[in-house]
Amino acid sequence: MQLYNSLSRRKEEFIPVKEGQAGVYVCGPTVYGHAHLGHAKSYVSFDVLVRYLRYLGYATTYVQNITDVGHLTDDGDEGDDKLAVAAQKEKKHPMALAEYYTRSFFEDMDQLNCVRPDISPRATGHITEQIELIQTLIDKGVAYEANGSVYFEVAKFEGYGKLSGRNTDEMISGTRVEVSPDKKSPTDFALWKKAEANHIMQWPSPWGRGFPGWHLECSVMSMKYLGVTIDIHGGGLENKFPHHECEIAQSEAANEAPFVKYWMHNNMVTVDGTKMGKSLNNFITLKEAFTGHHERLTRAYDPLAVRQLILNSHYRSPLDFSDAALYAALSGYTRITEAVQAVRKALAAATEGDLNPAIQAQLTAFKARFEEAMNDDLNTSVALSVLFDQVRLTHTLLSEGKATQATLHAIDDQFTLLGGDVLGIVKSSYNQAGAGTDDSLVDKLVTLLIDQRQHARKAKDFATSDLIRDKLAEAGVELKDTPNGTDWSLK
Amino acid sequence: MQLYNSLSRRKEEFIPVKEGQAGVYVCGPTVYGHAHLGHAKSYVSFDVLVRYLRYLGYATTYVQNITDVGHLTDDGDEGDDKLAVAAQKEKKHPMALAEYYTRSFFEDMDQLNCVRPDISPRATGHITEQIELIQTLIDKGVAYEANGSVYFEVAKFEGYGKLSGRNTDEMISGTRVEVSPDKKSPTDFALWKKAEANHIMQWPSPWGRGFPGWHLECSVMSMKYLGVTIDIHGGGLENKFPHHECEIAQSEAANEAPFVKYWMHNNMVTVDGTKMGKSLNNFITLKEAFTGHHERLTRAYDPLAVRQLILNSHYRSPLDFSDAALYAALSGYTRITEAVQAVRKALAAATEGDLNPAIQAQLTAFKARFEEAMNDDLNTSVALSVLFDQVRLTHTLLSEGKATQATLHAIDDQFTLLGGDVLGIVKSSYNQAGAGTDDSLVDKLVTLLIDQRQHARKAKDFATSDLIRDKLAEAGVELKDTPNGTDWSLK
Repeated sequence: MQLYNSLSRRKEEFIPVKEGQAGVYVCGPTVYGHAHLGHAKSYVSFDVLVRYLRYLGYATTYVQNITDVGHLTDDGDEGDDKLAVAAQKEKKHPMALAEYYTRSFFEDMDQLNCVRPDISPRATGHITEQIELIQTLIDKGVAYEANGSVYFEVAKFEGYGKLSGRNTDEMISGTRVEVSPDKKSPTDFALWKKAEANHIMQWPSPWGRGFPGWHLECSVMSMKYLGVTIDIHGGGLENKFPHHECEIAQSEAANEAPFVKYWMHNNMVTVDGTKMGKSLNNFITLKEAFTGHHERLTRAYDPLAVRQLILNSHYRSPLDFSDAALYAALSGYTRITEAVQAVRKALAAATEGDLNPAIQAQLTAFKARFEEAMNDDLNTSVALSVLFDQVRLTHTLLSEGKATQATLHAIDDQFTLLGGDVLGIVKSSYNQAGAGTDDSLVDKLVTLLIDQRQHARKAKDFATSDLIRDKLAEAGVELKDTPNGTDWSLK
Repeated sequence: MQLYNSLSRRKEEFIPVKEGQAGVYVCGPTVYGHAHLGHAKSYVSFDVLVRYLRYLGYATTYVQNITDVGHLTDDGDEGDDKLAVAAQKEKKHPMALAEYYTRSFFEDMDQLNCVRPDISPRATGHITEQIELIQTLIDKGVAYEANGSVYFEVAKFEGYGKLSGRNTDEMISGTRVEVSPDKKSPTDFALWKKAEANHIMQWPSPWGRGFPGWHLECSVMSMKYLGVTIDIHGGGLENKFPHHECEIAQSEAANEAPFVKYWMHNNMVTVDGTKMGKSLNNFITLKEAFTGHHERLTRAYDPLAVRQLILNSHYRSPLDFSDAALYAALSGYTRITEAVQAVRKALAAATEGDLNPAIQAQLTAFKARFEEAMNDDLNTSVALSVLFDQVRLTHTLLSEGKATQATLHAIDDQFTLLGGDVLGIVKSSYNQAGAGTDDSLVDKLVTLLIDQRQHARKAKDFATSDLIRDKLAEAGVELKDTPNGTDWSLK
């Protein structure tokens, strides 16, 4: 498998540190609000990475942190803690706020069918480890204490800038806010910040009471759970600098070993062509997308349609969300879903017999093309197009009505493997009548009504047969008469 | 409200530390396996406490910890860490194991309709705070370091034994395992344990690398989130000694202030009359109870039937789970549910008009009796009996068929308030056809079939009308002809 490594700026063959194993660390959310479309793009992208690594047979450990302290309002070393600000606004303890939004985050990720990380470590849960790393950096002479805070001395670490490609002059001119007089250089960044007495989140340390800098947690928690050199570190493009650059400096200065073999960055999202912003009325949370409660949306979207839209483009490409794009993704998602359901329905009535060798050959070719696309830096849009080819094959086969059980099984299995296990958009089972519906009961009731309609038609009581059809249509059940009987579907 | 205080061994009026506020800390699970019936008894009991405190208007903060380190296999100072043992068995990192079983725990608690705690702090997330408390205890001369471990010197704390009522001689004779030679007295207990080099969970400390003693986390986390003196500390009876006794010693020695105003302990559970034990085949997890996949169970139980069984008895009484008892609780739960559903259905067709003053008076009397029972140390079994009185009133009223909208609304509101908000067994809305079913679609389809059956009967086509009834019965839909038409229900 080739992955684009942001560090080398080219695609590279994936060769893990330990043969057969893969350690993946992805920067998780700062839990001070509900997850939005930007989170979906990042976590669906890396979810597919983890799923595909497992598909390829790597024993994969997936760590994704929860930031519940240290992320300041300026995304750098100044301002207030984002959690403390939100907690004050919502009149909650910051930890109660973190609890609430962490739960909300995982609810949304579950809806998007993202596999849960194996470990979801919290920044506040690793204060001891963070203090330990700071002490190591001080002992090695690359960090210094000043007035109760500790800073990383960028000039002492040769590789600073290698990920983002920025040089020190650019960094200095990019420093927007007033620089703390404690810093030796404006490029130095905080490892530990002295807390004012009234600061609600603070811990004791060798340098007095304070709290860790934002970048520190990821170095510490990836090291603790995945080792000194990890295989893959993922995150949004916006985290490349300063966040990831600082992680590299901390980890490599402390461990004197490479921090990450493959850096992967997903691109940003826009909404209706514009960067999301709360003042622009185009800031859409996932809960709003799933319920349709947003003025930019005309309907509620199935979470898997949101997922499909994300997979339609490459993770390294920007993605524009719009109602029209979501609707198109929903149509695509529905086409795949209907094909899978049709195969499974046909399976129940299919005859025994051998697997059709021509179909088998086509399935094998699809699988090869799918893997080829995924091996090319997770080209999910091409992988999806292969699934659509299989949808077309399915419809052709079903219209001929001669497929054996073995053939249909092979098709279903491949939908489940590639569309389900890897891409996460094919479910292992469906409620035919939609989410939250008892499939079999509705099926029995509709079948009984179809029988009654048939009974009425035979008796030439067309008033009754039409009434049944119309009433079913009102309830959202559409009938379709075919030579083999009456099929039904939900609108 | 009167609560039985395990410390004073009598019922006392609840007077919180801060007027109008209540801080509740409950010992949470050690996350090395799925939750079982014993967990259900404890967490449903304290869930009702929290719900009732909120009903009474107290601004309540509910903290329930997650133990993910330090709980040793002997439940004391010896043996291996329960998480490390399970992690080795399941070939996972202990933190991945904790993640998995924490999620499983909350899934089960959600099913039991337990309100989520405001904060669910983890022991591993508070190592810094635990080290800080140990240092305080050493500084105060009540703890000593020995060979890399730190022990609390029980002889230095006067009140030791005041909760459990044990004296030191009893405690010494109760010491089953070989006592560490580092301890000055067998009653001393570990605050910090030195870790062997290969111990997977260890942190740096002023006394070398190690891990915290089990009791420490609760002192630290209750103090951090609820203050030095907390209103209510809850837990299972089995935690009274040594766990809670040690918490008192640590907290009061450190803070020189009372630790807990009201200690509350729920009683134990048995299954078929015997203490639960893995070797006895009577160890039933909640997932097994909810799915019926256990040889002691004849069916799957609605989680709220499990909840109802717990509320049928007092939290301070032992509770015996059996298939028969669960089945009886299910019947009771179903009676309440059906009455609430009947009221809500009748509401749709009810006429406008005043609230019947006689009914209003009865509802007020029910509410007073309900509160009286709950104010008497949470007597939920009497509170439930009041709900059943309201069920009877409801059926009488509905059979007369004259209740106004206002009257039915008053009944529904009281069911929702007392049975829902406080006891957690009445839902704000139901899927008539059971969990996971699209209520309105099933209702429309069944209504259409009832119409068809009526049509057939009018045409004296009894073969058809009987067929519809029989097929519906096969699908689990039971018809009941009444003077006002045909009602239906799901079996």
